Amino acid sequence: MTDYDRFYCANAKGMKESELTELLKFSSKPGIISFAGGYPAPDLFPIKEVTEIINELMAKDGKNILQYGPTEGFLPLREELLKFMKKQGADLSIDQLFIITSSQQGLDLVGKLFIGPGDIIMTGKPTYIGAIMAFNCYSARLRGVELEDDGINTVKLEQEIKSLIAGNQKPKFIYVIPDFQNPSGITISMEKRKELIRIAETYDLLIVEDSPYRQLRFEGDPEPPLISLNSEKVISLYTFSKILLPGFRLGWMAGPESLIRKAVIAKQACDICAPPFNQAITAEFMKRGLLDKQVEKIVPAYREKRDFMLTKLAEYMPEMDGLTWTRPKGGLFLWLTLPENMDAVEMFKEAVENKVAYVVGQAFDPEGKKRNTMRLNFSFAGLEQIDEGVKRLAQVIKNR
Amino acid sequence: MTDYDRFYCANAKGMKESELTELLKFSSKPGIISFAGGYPAPDLFPIKEVTEIINELMAKDGKNILQYGPTEGFLPLREELLKFMKKQGADLSIDQLFIITSSQQGLDLVGKLFIGPGDIIMTGKPTYIGAIMAFNCYSARLRGVELEDDGINTVKLEQEIKSLIAGNQKPKFIYVIPDFQNPSGITISMEKRKELIRIAETYDLLIVEDSPYRQLRFEGDPEPPLISLNSEKVISLYTFSKILLPGFRLGWMAGPESLIRKAVIAKQACDICAPPFNQAITAEFMKRGLLDKQVEKIVPAYREKRDFMLTKLAEYMPEMDGLTWTRPKGGLFLWLTLPENMDAVEMFKEAVENKVAYVVGQAFDPEGKKRNTMRLNFSFAGLEQIDEGVKRLAQVIKNR
Repeated sequence: MTDYDRFYCANAKGMKESELTELLKFSSKPGIISFAGGYPAPDLFPIKEVTEIINELMAKDGKNILQYGPTEGFLPLREELLKFMKKQGADLSIDQLFIITSSQQGLDLVGKLFIGPGDIIMTGKPTYIGAIMAFNCYSARLRGVELEDDGINTVKLEQEIKSLIAGNQKPKFIYVIPDFQNPSGITISMEKRKELIRIAETYDLLIVEDSPYRQLRFEGDPEPPLISLNSEKVISLYTFSKILLPGFRLGWMAGPESLIRKAVIAKQACDICAPPFNQAITAEFMKRGLLDKQVEKIVPAYREKRDFMLTKLAEYMPEMDGLTWTRPKGGLFLWLTLPENMDAVEMFKEAVENKVAYVVGQAFDPEGKKRNTMRLNFSFAGLEQIDEGVKRLAQVIKNR
Repeated sequence: MTDYDRFYCANAKGMKESELTELLKFSSKPGIISFAGGYPAPDLFPIKEVTEIINELMAKDGKNILQYGPTEGFLPLREELLKFMKKQGADLSIDQLFIITSSQQGLDLVGKLFIGPGDIIMTGKPTYIGAIMAFNCYSARLRGVELEDDGINTVKLEQEIKSLIAGNQKPKFIYVIPDFQNPSGITISMEKRKELIRIAETYDLLIVEDSPYRQLRFEGDPEPPLISLNSEKVISLYTFSKILLPGFRLGWMAGPESLIRKAVIAKQACDICAPPFNQAITAEFMKRGLLDKQVEKIVPAYREKRDFMLTKLAEYMPEMDGLTWTRPKGGLFLWLTLPENMDAVEMFKEAVENKVAYVVGQAFDPEGKKRNTMRLNFSFAGLEQIDEGVKRLAQVIKNR
């Protein structure tokens, strides 16, 4: 095969097959119990309601919803989302919010707008692999700051930022997943949210807040979204993938008006508009009050799965110094840390042979180093599978 | 409002509101007959068939089609498209083709893979505004080469390429729309297709072939797609927007296997996957043989509209030296040239006041200069509207 390296631009030279993709291929082999993907439970998809809505919309408005739409998105959907965001504590105007083709597109747009080659982005450590991929496409240099039980270590974050600025390497933005972080499941405390805003204000930095799991809270009261604490320094990304269904590829971005205007321009060059058909269905779904009901249906189901996985981890996992896992208050994932001398990457083959899969934590390390961690998803598998899967995983760990 | 310029990367500083967007806003005002957009005729959307398919798929496979899917796209859709491409003369393997979220995304991906700041891209002059926008996001420098009645002037193209290479500024690729070009309606002849391939081979250049209108041929025999003439140097972009419907935002990209692999990696960081739901519907639509039937339905309808617009142009337009228009053999657009001293940009306001809209040709000029041209779309308006719209436009031109 001809080698095309000579044609790629500098940014493209660094784009490599993600470990996640490769591993996800294994995890879909027959008989494997997968804790790997970030898939919502398909049993909970509102198939009946969505089908009904489609039939009504097609009969009434088919010509319109199958046509091109504005880059900003379908107006009734944006209006529904303003109400939705208001309930989250963020009071936005229509020009502060637009529809994106998945929140992953939001990460790409943020890269497109802000990241020049070598620019530094502050992230948690670990952080979402999709953000690492998106920012790497723009040749970002990621600086990960350790997470604590209540979120990113803001003291270290500030120190790092200070010293970067002193070295004339001011970061372009701080990227955080405030609620039930992917991959760790950790939520940022109110105190640290305020600290993040103070840091952004002090050093004139933007914050990109990625919030796919916010609505999936199993216990306790929600902390305010960062955008509600400062409307000039925060860009927020949301998705329908975890609260409704992923197959529509829809999300939304909110932020300061002139920034959103610029993001819309960038989006137009990416795909003109998010699928109008899917947007119209989703708007109607929200208009009927079905999204809130859907969340009410998902939350207890995922809470049960989380509780069950935690019980099974306590039951099956060997007692080992350094073997720990998080206890997330919501979302889809928990994070398991092995003893320092164990290697979750090497162990992966053995796990797959024993018919259980996870995502190696290394994929979420902005520096790609840490090898003794793994992400476990509890939303996709059924209870029986969770029982059996955790048992198999514990056996693999014992065998090392 | 705070000014965010200090945060944008160098590439983003050049991203500006497109003229097209602004003008399209005018053209959707009530009472205006619009020849502006590139909208297909909504009366021809296969609403009934699509609705039937959705009902069947949701009952049978809802959980699967509403879930995430592979970045490469839904396998049955890719398989259908292989057959489709084979009928076009391009015999591809499955790894040479993947699904994109609109062919506009293909343009973005091509930019992402190949264009570094200041890189030169060869295009026709005029050329598709969406490509100009997409490539500009990567700070490309576009070099437009004049179109002739049988496509891009390949003699000039070769001269330009030679002199660029001599100056150590080798272009990154040649971008062409071979069939019923947007905006001009011009189709590249067989002779020039061979010339393009020879040039690509001689100077080791890639060709990006953008082919949204290929299936919409009203007369004569199709020329082979460039990808069928050389499978190592050509990347092809296709869309369902013009032959099925735009509201699903689906297209496909074909090219050499290792390049496609790289494009898939880049796409994963952009939006993970094209909407699986929409892909499943489209695959089923193709499987039932409905896409061919749909094209058979569209072609005579658009042929009639083209013929009608040409008749009305001949009937209403004043006789003026330098006032000419193309006679496309397919597609959605024709291209009208005013006398050199007339300005279609200035005239636009008057046109809108007289309740008719077009797109100013300047938007399609890679150098953004030429002001005496306009693109007229004939697919969207009905026959009565075409009659009245051309009459109004002729009046505006007479009044200058």
